[in-house]
Amino acid sequence: MRMPGAFEMQCPLPAEPDTIQLAHGSGGRWMNQLLDRTILPAFRATAEGTRHDGAVVEIAPGPLAFTTDSYVIRPLFFPGGDIGRLAVYGSVNDLAMCGARARWLSAALILEEGLPIETLKRVLASMAAAAAETGIEIVTGDTKVVERGKGDGVYINTTAIGAVRAHSLIAPSAVQAGDAILINGDLGRHGIAVLSVREGLEFEGDIASDLAPLWGPVERLLDADIDVHCLRDLTRGGLSSALNEIAQSARVGIAIREAAIPVNEVVRGACEILGLDPLYVANEGRFAAFVPASQAQKAAEQIGGVVIGEVVVEHSGAVIVETELGSHRVLDMLSGEQLPRIC
Amino acid sequence: MRMPGAFEMQCPLPAEPDTIQLAHGSGGRWMNQLLDRTILPAFRATAEGTRHDGAVVEIAPGPLAFTTDSYVIRPLFFPGGDIGRLAVYGSVNDLAMCGARARWLSAALILEEGLPIETLKRVLASMAAAAAETGIEIVTGDTKVVERGKGDGVYINTTAIGAVRAHSLIAPSAVQAGDAILINGDLGRHGIAVLSVREGLEFEGDIASDLAPLWGPVERLLDADIDVHCLRDLTRGGLSSALNEIAQSARVGIAIREAAIPVNEVVRGACEILGLDPLYVANEGRFAAFVPASQAQKAAEQIGGVVIGEVVVEHSGAVIVETELGSHRVLDMLSGEQLPRIC
Repeated sequence: MRMPGAFEMQCPLPAEPDTIQLAHGSGGRWMNQLLDRTILPAFRATAEGTRHDGAVVEIAPGPLAFTTDSYVIRPLFFPGGDIGRLAVYGSVNDLAMCGARARWLSAALILEEGLPIETLKRVLASMAAAAAETGIEIVTGDTKVVERGKGDGVYINTTAIGAVRAHSLIAPSAVQAGDAILINGDLGRHGIAVLSVREGLEFEGDIASDLAPLWGPVERLLDADIDVHCLRDLTRGGLSSALNEIAQSARVGIAIREAAIPVNEVVRGACEILGLDPLYVANEGRFAAFVPASQAQKAAEQIGGVVIGEVVVEHSGAVIVETELGSHRVLDMLSGEQLPRIC
Repeated sequence: MRMPGAFEMQCPLPAEPDTIQLAHGSGGRWMNQLLDRTILPAFRATAEGTRHDGAVVEIAPGPLAFTTDSYVIRPLFFPGGDIGRLAVYGSVNDLAMCGARARWLSAALILEEGLPIETLKRVLASMAAAAAETGIEIVTGDTKVVERGKGDGVYINTTAIGAVRAHSLIAPSAVQAGDAILINGDLGRHGIAVLSVREGLEFEGDIASDLAPLWGPVERLLDADIDVHCLRDLTRGGLSSALNEIAQSARVGIAIREAAIPVNEVVRGACEILGLDPLYVANEGRFAAFVPASQAQKAAEQIGGVVIGEVVVEHSGAVIVETELGSHRVLDMLSGEQLPRIC
């Protein structure tokens, strides 16, 4: 059954089209061409991990954190970032919130027919740069293609795994009355930046997303021997939803001071015009940390942040904010939808 | 700052709507309601793992396999399965192809506005049943909502991790000339079953998808001390694309015999009517195994399968099939797209 001429019998690969075709999701030649020419070169991945059905990684013994997120942000590119960078940092940040450093990442793409290949390349280059910057490896992936009108350019799922660095549990259940609550910077930039470009709004001053990897500040807290009880990134639903979730999970009350919460003047102005409350607007580089009150100042220095309130035994399950005027109001969880597809 | 009446100040949750709304993706109250009432009860997940940003699992030292897949199959329900069962088995099977047993799974949903909640519940129940059956835990997840016309009901990403059971590398690079190639059953059922319901076709006889978890047969190969060199599931692009990928990665030739490949009569008839080649049609419960020729019969018994060919030193990178008439043809990788959104 020797056929020395077998290779000559194969047709040359068709030229690469400019846009994604349904055939790019076929599992066949076009899909392999997309992998070989576009996806694998972007990630500089080894053939073994990405051309096989999965990757094999060597893990040190001990607890492993595991998190998944799909990214459907619109538009794909926004001031301060893009869906590719968001998809890498987002999962890095979710692991950081577990006290874990992301080490390996999977990347699964859902591409819409008609997506320009150039756009895909920009997104992949951005993912690769974000992965290099945060020291993680994209080791396995998947590509699906859906028809026009069944997607929106590109949706990305990333799933991250990494070893837990923290020595004690970082979770809502570890939160205690008396804990200080800190945040690591001003609120609302991501939501306002995305909204500005999506709606073509112009504000007095440039607002870029706060999108950033959060393992750095978390590592500094751990290195400084801060007894971190809980961490939570302030993404969809903003500070308000994050604190409400923790108050309800941990069955504690939370009291914060509005005057202590930094909000950039341009963001504040934009929120006033749009009728948004910055405490509900999404961030992508901000988190809340719950630490013992005695370590609050030391923790604030490590993360360049501020103390905004504390955990109390009263009003269990609820978040109460002291307004700048000195009155108190319940800060409820976001009801309805403020900014669809913000991440 | 004591406010004993705080809880009374919160509005009661609005009634659950019948369909997915954009607010279900907000990160706020509606999203928490969807999690509490629909998603977490389906998975019987503990609060800690799924309400926090990630899950923490304890891993034994040693190599860990890691795989991701998004599922965009249309329609959501088909003879022999549905997207939920597919999303669990699919990732179980990808890990099985690495010689690893899936242990933990993440589940990320992209829901289209307007999806009936009842449909979501059916899909989630199906995922939960498939997870229970295969002994895996769904430990972390994510939910996003996109506007009408930006999705198609529900897309699911699952990412699986699990310890590698195999003692030696299972990968294309381990394939050697002389290896026997086996498959574990007849080909083409999944593609034809999906196509029949999608296009409203009726064939003479019922065809259900072959969708099935594959860790069982893989474990039997390992338990029987078969020196498995490579495994590959025969999903998108079918047998043909899988063998071509391995021939190219491993730089070997592959020779198979068409007469040895089982194809159900109804599938064969449907393929003839539709102008499809069963060797290119997708399967979801079939795989190819590459094992030393001396162990081929023993391996076939373990998986209830058949030997369909062997690895040769000739025609490196190409797959040659001996037809039922005794002639030879190059079995090329699928070119173009045969059946979009088959998985």
